[in-house]
Amino acid sequence: MVLKFITSNIHKYEEALLIGEKYEINISHENLEYIESQNDSFSEIARFSLDNLKEKIQGDFFIEDAGLVIECLNGFPGPYSSFVYSTIGNQGILELMRNEKNRNAKFISTVALFYKNKEFLFVGECHGSIASEIKGEHGFGYDPIFIPSEKNISFGQLDVDEKSLLSHRSIAINKMIKFLKEN
Amino acid sequence: MVLKFITSNIHKYEEALLIGEKYEINISHENLEYIESQNDSFSEIARFSLDNLKEKIQGDFFIEDAGLVIECLNGFPGPYSSFVYSTIGNQGILELMRNEKNRNAKFISTVALFYKNKEFLFVGECHGSIASEIKGEHGFGYDPIFIPSEKNISFGQLDVDEKSLLSHRSIAINKMIKFLKEN
Repeated sequence: MVLKFITSNIHKYEEALLIGEKYEINISHENLEYIESQNDSFSEIARFSLDNLKEKIQGDFFIEDAGLVIECLNGFPGPYSSFVYSTIGNQGILELMRNEKNRNAKFISTVALFYKNKEFLFVGECHGSIASEIKGEHGFGYDPIFIPSEKNISFGQLDVDEKSLLSHRSIAINKMIKFLKEN
Repeated sequence: MVLKFITSNIHKYEEALLIGEKYEINISHENLEYIESQNDSFSEIARFSLDNLKEKIQGDFFIEDAGLVIECLNGFPGPYSSFVYSTIGNQGILELMRNEKNRNAKFISTVALFYKNKEFLFVGECHGSIASEIKGEHGFGYDPIFIPSEKNISFGQLDVDEKSLLSHRSIAINKMIKFLKEN
């Protein structure tokens, strides 16, 4: 089975490809930018994008939207994680939390699948905390400041194989693959 | 002439109403939420929203999208100003700029008008700087930390009449009204 992953983020594709291989699902890549809506709900954003893409893409495909949700910052940067990363970056996040004891955060991934002419959503969450400094060279975005609960090192210190064992994105993609195997 | 302003922000409507009165343009209010796209360009966001609204609204109408663009923060919070305000607030912005000497910032307002079945865009900018503390009870959002170049007090310390003499929003709305008077 071949499934298209529509994303302009090559790191996300790399992570998805690895997971697909385990289950003998061939994930291909289409590098396409698409319109995202401004919404506080990740699911609504994914649903809206899928609606807009389904007229343009041939065959089954999926998209993924992810964000970092920091408890003491009321969910910031949330759905606007990539814009926030590209402006204030990890240093900005650490600055905002300088005197903060509550470091709780989670990564949320929403995978929206268009399959046999129907839409399906799969959500993955990875709980953890925000580090006090930037650490690690792997991954992308907020990975060097996010420490998943299962580890005491950051996503940025895990290679892509290790990260894909516990990441929000792999949880969501695994749910999708399980669904595809059963349907 | 009657013109509908589609917005869920009553403060924006109040500002627009005042400007309209000066030119004998009766601006009415329709409290409607609409889909905004995620985009780094204010103009693209406004254009997209207008496209989605024009099927739903009877007669001529306009919308407005505004944001604060801070130089040292690479344009943050920009198009996501309201989400950023609702999560980290003015205190968060001041925190991010704690040790920053370059306080340059501007407010940008984009008014998108649907008039005689055509779309028109009007942009207003107000240059100024970010204060070192929160001051003033007027206005909304970032007003208490934004000092327009023409003054040495914040938007939050100006009442709505004073603010509307120099604000980004009033510049954009004035451009629209001038256009309407000529067409």
